[in-house]
Amino acid sequence: MSLLVVGSVALDSVRSPFGDVTDVVGGSATYFSTSASYFTDVALVAVIGEDFPQSALDDLTGRGVDLSGMMRQAGRTFRWKGEYGFDLNEAKTLDTQLNVFEAFNPELPASHRQAEFVFLGNIDPTLQLRVLDQVDSPRFVAADTMNFWIQGKPEALRQVLARIDMLFVNDAEARALSGESNIVKAAAAIRAMGPKRVAIKRGEYGALLFDGEEVFFAPAYPLEEVFDPTGAGDSFAGGFMGWVSRQGELDNATLCQATVVGSVMASYCVERFSLERVRELTPDLIARRFEQFQRLMRFSPLEPLAG
Amino acid sequence: MSLLVVGSVALDSVRSPFGDVTDVVGGSATYFSTSASYFTDVALVAVIGEDFPQSALDDLTGRGVDLSGMMRQAGRTFRWKGEYGFDLNEAKTLDTQLNVFEAFNPELPASHRQAEFVFLGNIDPTLQLRVLDQVDSPRFVAADTMNFWIQGKPEALRQVLARIDMLFVNDAEARALSGESNIVKAAAAIRAMGPKRVAIKRGEYGALLFDGEEVFFAPAYPLEEVFDPTGAGDSFAGGFMGWVSRQGELDNATLCQATVVGSVMASYCVERFSLERVRELTPDLIARRFEQFQRLMRFSPLEPLAG
Repeated sequence: MSLLVVGSVALDSVRSPFGDVTDVVGGSATYFSTSASYFTDVALVAVIGEDFPQSALDDLTGRGVDLSGMMRQAGRTFRWKGEYGFDLNEAKTLDTQLNVFEAFNPELPASHRQAEFVFLGNIDPTLQLRVLDQVDSPRFVAADTMNFWIQGKPEALRQVLARIDMLFVNDAEARALSGESNIVKAAAAIRAMGPKRVAIKRGEYGALLFDGEEVFFAPAYPLEEVFDPTGAGDSFAGGFMGWVSRQGELDNATLCQATVVGSVMASYCVERFSLERVRELTPDLIARRFEQFQRLMRFSPLEPLAG
Repeated sequence: MSLLVVGSVALDSVRSPFGDVTDVVGGSATYFSTSASYFTDVALVAVIGEDFPQSALDDLTGRGVDLSGMMRQAGRTFRWKGEYGFDLNEAKTLDTQLNVFEAFNPELPASHRQAEFVFLGNIDPTLQLRVLDQVDSPRFVAADTMNFWIQGKPEALRQVLARIDMLFVNDAEARALSGESNIVKAAAAIRAMGPKRVAIKRGEYGALLFDGEEVFFAPAYPLEEVFDPTGAGDSFAGGFMGWVSRQGELDNATLCQATVVGSVMASYCVERFSLERVRELTPDLIARRFEQFQRLMRFSPLEPLAG
């Protein structure tokens, strides 16, 4: 097993200018695993209720995701309801029902404890710590978080930060976590708290990777149709971590490539509701969008300017 | 003469979280010319009042800018007063005094009429048309505009669009001009009005170039200190047009390179108030920031994914 993810598996209801969906499959760990499954073996740890559709589990198993750490419990699955305006950058949360997630206490099967690559999806940092306590000696641990935990569980989050190698956050979260409005300073302040690398996700504007002395930027692919941004950040992280796990390398060149792979997966994710588009990809489609990113970002060096 | 620019020359008062300045040199044509002067010969057509400082004219002349089309008239120079919050992306205009600009009627000296490259800065589209009527057969004409003209002079602006090769606008202007919220569709709609190329400026998020079937993206350089975004868009256009004029080529590779050169100039502009930073650059500093952009955007191709 290469890549372990713990996070939410949810049923989402989403309203966007392009339509409505109710109780569709969502959750950070679901998007992450589906995206990462194109690149590496994934094990998913999460909790679902009695009402979670078997077909969605079958889809994950079908793409090689190890669900031996998936707990099904009495009660309803975690639910999230959100709305997007024409500015698709920010979701307005209309309702959150923790349901079975309320008592979630992740227990890793023995086979998961040797995971080399670990992703702690956006859940209570206390739970993220509990997962970290159960893995033996991972090579690379990354985490996501959100304002709710930055404000509500700052101490536990500090402990998480001290133990991870990389953090994935968006602009606003980076600012809230660091107290810095400038994003370069915010990244530096976060790195001083522990993680050597920080990816800052900027929605339709792309993502920045801070790694050592290097900064790398990948734009979001300019699409004619953006249907539903839900899951884009987790698809990004899944592509990123899937690629790193597949390559087994942590040098800057691999991480830059991983940032583009993540951007490829996010760009597909937003083209449809729920997991519809991320589920139906192929190595060819991924390679094609990757090439589009190359054309989007390629330019020739300067000849000497003076003279 | 290679590059002709007509636009505003102003005295700006700017308030930002990082300080206040009063009646400093500004204006679209001033930023544009200073930026372009590193790459090509520039001729500037504008109007100033009696109170415009001679030292600022001397600076322009000193960098080879042809001021034979600069009219000094009785009265006060055009003044703009603006404010930026911590979100430095958008200026709030506090006051505009047209002063001598009110009666501005651009008259090109004979030597300017053979200009090959022309930039129509953000002024009344009626004036932009009058300038176009006075140039013989330019190779490449680009223009900038703003919401004030999009709403106030839509007919004249349509005529401008039908006669230019490229438009520089920001996100909000592109949306207002096209009626499309999606930026890819907005660019397509604008190109259907005339200009074959569109550059969409996105402030701290960078710039998109639409050219034929190609899309190119350059991020804004992630800086630790952004002092004052005033003039960044005109410094971008100046770098872009200066580079194109220097190279004398209009192929996609040159335009992509020009987008990065423009981004280099904009990234320096915002580091200080007014023209302070853009004035003091050197070929070496420009080449160095260009290389930083290469590192910011460089990544390796994928090996085949399947297998």
